[in-house]
Amino acid sequence: MVVKQKVLLLGATGETGASILKGLQESGNFDIEVLVRPASKNKPSVQKIQEQGIKIWCIDINESSDLMSALSGVDVLISAIGPHGLLEQKKLLQAAKSAGVKRIVPCAFITVAPPRGAMLLRDEKEEVYNDIKFLGIPYTIIDVGYWYQISFPSLPSGKVDYAMIVPNSTIHGDGTAPNILTDLRDVGRFVARIIYDDRTLNKYVYTYGDILSENEINRIAEELSGEKVEPTPMSNEQIEDSVAQAKAALSQNPQDPMKRTVLYISQYKHSKYVRKDNSPAYADYLGYLDARSLYPEFTPLSFREFFVEVLAGKMKKVYSS
Amino acid sequence: MVVKQKVLLLGATGETGASILKGLQESGNFDIEVLVRPASKNKPSVQKIQEQGIKIWCIDINESSDLMSALSGVDVLISAIGPHGLLEQKKLLQAAKSAGVKRIVPCAFITVAPPRGAMLLRDEKEEVYNDIKFLGIPYTIIDVGYWYQISFPSLPSGKVDYAMIVPNSTIHGDGTAPNILTDLRDVGRFVARIIYDDRTLNKYVYTYGDILSENEINRIAEELSGEKVEPTPMSNEQIEDSVAQAKAALSQNPQDPMKRTVLYISQYKHSKYVRKDNSPAYADYLGYLDARSLYPEFTPLSFREFFVEVLAGKMKKVYSS
Repeated sequence: MVVKQKVLLLGATGETGASILKGLQESGNFDIEVLVRPASKNKPSVQKIQEQGIKIWCIDINESSDLMSALSGVDVLISAIGPHGLLEQKKLLQAAKSAGVKRIVPCAFITVAPPRGAMLLRDEKEEVYNDIKFLGIPYTIIDVGYWYQISFPSLPSGKVDYAMIVPNSTIHGDGTAPNILTDLRDVGRFVARIIYDDRTLNKYVYTYGDILSENEINRIAEELSGEKVEPTPMSNEQIEDSVAQAKAALSQNPQDPMKRTVLYISQYKHSKYVRKDNSPAYADYLGYLDARSLYPEFTPLSFREFFVEVLAGKMKKVYSS
Repeated sequence: MVVKQKVLLLGATGETGASILKGLQESGNFDIEVLVRPASKNKPSVQKIQEQGIKIWCIDINESSDLMSALSGVDVLISAIGPHGLLEQKKLLQAAKSAGVKRIVPCAFITVAPPRGAMLLRDEKEEVYNDIKFLGIPYTIIDVGYWYQISFPSLPSGKVDYAMIVPNSTIHGDGTAPNILTDLRDVGRFVARIIYDDRTLNKYVYTYGDILSENEINRIAEELSGEKVEPTPMSNEQIEDSVAQAKAALSQNPQDPMKRTVLYISQYKHSKYVRKDNSPAYADYLGYLDARSLYPEFTPLSFREFFVEVLAGKMKKVYSS
């Protein structure tokens, strides 16, 4: 009899967390419990999880005794906490260590980027990774690049706009920077494999379905749609200006979530298209393992398959529920 | 014909730098040049290097054009800069990148410790490592643990005190923490191998001659000397107090080199003996390669061999010239 690993998941109602929850359920290798904060208790998304028979721990993470109960017997703690709550994870670490958690997967799940100095979002994650290493807790960092779901262009017909947060067809720089891309729905499928694998212990891993530049993405979109993408160019200088402006705005009010989000987005663009960080070569330099090499038997969704679904009107807009 | 690698070494007159210079010379695989700052130009130790026919670049590292000349054609840039000048290395990095240096070995050469939060000395090194990763320069981090030369006890006869900076026979905590130890004279021999090896590119590597606890060191010292070590105990609480005091003193005058040194020493003790960081297990957790596994054909000096020399009056006190 195979003993299942007990996983405690934080952030299960977010886009990444929901994909992880589904991936873990599909795999059948895990007993899954979910940690939610008291403020989220009555959210419909939390109740939906409960209706699936999944145990919900509704806990104030400032209460260490409650936390210890939730963490007792947990093999893997996964955090998919939102970008504005990253430093909150620090409160979990000592408890995770005391409870003997065998692996912690802190909230990474972004593009490949330098540990410090390129993206505020990444800098805050680094603080958490450093605390984990300070405590010596076994860990895995999983980055997924950028999602297909936010990496495709608007078409002149407007037929794919239903699936876009803000319809646009911007090309950044010369459009040639290769990018690590994963279908959001595959994030959980990769996570289920990565956390069930001793080779990934105390390692950084990146996942991808495709590595594509914006020019390549547009060519696929044109081929599949029969339409001509009409790109709006954004130069490296414009991207740099947008970062500078977002930093200046945030400095006026450092905790404003909207201003932080604007900075995150501009720094993503800068890191992906000006610095060209989100590439297999830079991931390799930084010491990441490649999840495709680790799991050759798993074929993730390709961007082409994804865009066929978008064109067929079958995709769901992210951040829409 | 084997083409030699061109190495530029900064800090060649310090203890670590001198060992590296000697190790590189012994190996025969390198064309060595040395970078010194104008203030050091007339030091006898610099003149001694010059007398060996080694090219000396006497350069203000704030002058980027001079720096570019020194870095032109350099394969490996090694920095063994002193502990108070670590952040000065940041000025070298952009130039090293522009010059196409194929590997940078920033000043590491200390104990294995967490990237942040345990030792100010390590925290400042981390800043430099992060800048290197930001720029994407190929690198190798080499840590050597603590030197034999500062890891042996005073004996009742006083016969080994000549080789000690401050004679003492303190035992920290229960004396059982295992420590990564390297003979200072082997540092350069390891470095010569590590930088000539593609397997160590973009990796962390630790070296050791022996892994020993203070209790084990004392047993060897007693066996070889026939004397009985009379240890002075220092409890974990006393070590923690010494760190707190050193921090408080430094906060009064953050740039005072003496106060920084006192903090470095107390944090070394805390990291080595209370946290027990400087161990193969923690190095492995942090992703270090083990230099002994990489170079099984090289037998470094053992602590036992070292202490025989100390007893014979043949050792030189470190930091004495």
